[in-house]
Amino acid sequence: MSNDRAERAMHPFDAATFLEQTSPGHLRGRSSPSYWNWVGPFGGFVAAVAMRSVVVQPNVVGDPLQLTVNFAGPMQEGPFDVNVRPVRTNRTTQHWVVEITQPVDDVEGAASVAIATITTAMRRSVFSHAELLPPPSPQPDQLSRLSPPWNATWIDQYDLRYAEGVALKSTSGNSRSLFWIRDFPNRNIDYPALAAIADASLPRIFVLRPQFTPSATVSLTAYFHGDANTLAQIGNEYLLTESRSSVFDSGFHDQHANIWSRDGRLLVSTQQIVWYKA
Amino acid sequence: MSNDRAERAMHPFDAATFLEQTSPGHLRGRSSPSYWNWVGPFGGFVAAVAMRSVVVQPNVVGDPLQLTVNFAGPMQEGPFDVNVRPVRTNRTTQHWVVEITQPVDDVEGAASVAIATITTAMRRSVFSHAELLPPPSPQPDQLSRLSPPWNATWIDQYDLRYAEGVALKSTSGNSRSLFWIRDFPNRNIDYPALAAIADASLPRIFVLRPQFTPSATVSLTAYFHGDANTLAQIGNEYLLTESRSSVFDSGFHDQHANIWSRDGRLLVSTQQIVWYKA
Repeated sequence: MSNDRAERAMHPFDAATFLEQTSPGHLRGRSSPSYWNWVGPFGGFVAAVAMRSVVVQPNVVGDPLQLTVNFAGPMQEGPFDVNVRPVRTNRTTQHWVVEITQPVDDVEGAASVAIATITTAMRRSVFSHAELLPPPSPQPDQLSRLSPPWNATWIDQYDLRYAEGVALKSTSGNSRSLFWIRDFPNRNIDYPALAAIADASLPRIFVLRPQFTPSATVSLTAYFHGDANTLAQIGNEYLLTESRSSVFDSGFHDQHANIWSRDGRLLVSTQQIVWYKA
Repeated sequence: MSNDRAERAMHPFDAATFLEQTSPGHLRGRSSPSYWNWVGPFGGFVAAVAMRSVVVQPNVVGDPLQLTVNFAGPMQEGPFDVNVRPVRTNRTTQHWVVEITQPVDDVEGAASVAIATITTAMRRSVFSHAELLPPPSPQPDQLSRLSPPWNATWIDQYDLRYAEGVALKSTSGNSRSLFWIRDFPNRNIDYPALAAIADASLPRIFVLRPQFTPSATVSLTAYFHGDANTLAQIGNEYLLTESRSSVFDSGFHDQHANIWSRDGRLLVSTQQIVWYKA
């Protein structure tokens, strides 16, 4: 099968986040118009690339546990380079640093687009306890798919079904959203896809306030609860996300989201600090 | 004044986190027996060192906004090296990477003890909104200072007054704690001290379960709400921390804390992923 045919057979997410290894620890990708936001790719695309760059490493220990991505500057159209380094390998955890760079006009050499830390871990069948329960929600088939109120191609890559807190349309007076999400077309979930979905909540300033406010994620952290077997059991089912902010302060707001499986298992707890201009 | 006398005049926190610049971007510190936990320094000490290594840089832009520390391996007694690098400087944000290394017996050269990403930012007087309100709590003078139930010197460096969820003594059946904290002796708060306090919640497994469970923070993230002027207004007053976990899963649990000023301002939202052996 030619490369062209292989790409056509790939899910759009796999094609968009495809990374070619150029030498050990160095990979090359290309920003995808199909996951575009306003001034660059959707941050979840960048998070997914960072995650993918680690999970494809031959010496990775266990499954992803933690991801932090600092969005240093907007990614441009075109190729980018990924530098992946295992900082330290322990018995149950392995610490990675990922830096994504791209040639930029006003910077000599390549500029950092994103810097990420990722921990992978060996999970064990020990004492487990779910303390936080999922919020009540209508089921996905009782809700209609979101028609994006603006032109951002990444939103078309998801089937988003909002129960509460649609951006620019919420009148609740708070920042809470509750929505179902899955890749469109359907795709079995994995860690890169979950990393992208961790950033799918949109800046909470869009829910608190009805007018459009320029904003951008500065840093995103996600913790993954459950190993690869857990994800395999979920397959391509909808995931439920509840998202809210604590404070909007002097041009930056936090936001916190929990992502649940349809049968009520917490898969991801994630938070961001977001810049806004208001 | 000799160095000896200067150190005696310093607050223990400042003495413990003191860093000497060895060359541009390179600093050297020493792990302190006064901030010791079981197998190494209290993680908040390491977080504070990472934060301090950035705020002392001459070219830092604005005040700290975000900190993520990945605890790659336990810090040993003795000196450590800190490598600080500004990854990218934008108009309102600056992205830093900090790596703390130490010679380790079974690793050739130096091993990574911690890797941190830090964002500093210029805040502006724009639209602000407090969505999350502080939880009701008794005042610090209505509570008595915690007598640590074990031998960890770092706990002695704080005046901790628990309203709920004392480690190994809680019978609530959940992981929630609510407590006042300030440095002991009193010290005006700054970002390194706040970074340490972000890690002062103890692993939530100690609150959920009455027995001692070996545990260690894998990664900590803190978002700082408020600039240096905000912190100056707070001075050395008690701060209120509310802390809880969402899930304990297969040897790792998350935990989330909010840290409030006494007059009800959210100063820090922070989260961790913690390894536990149970």
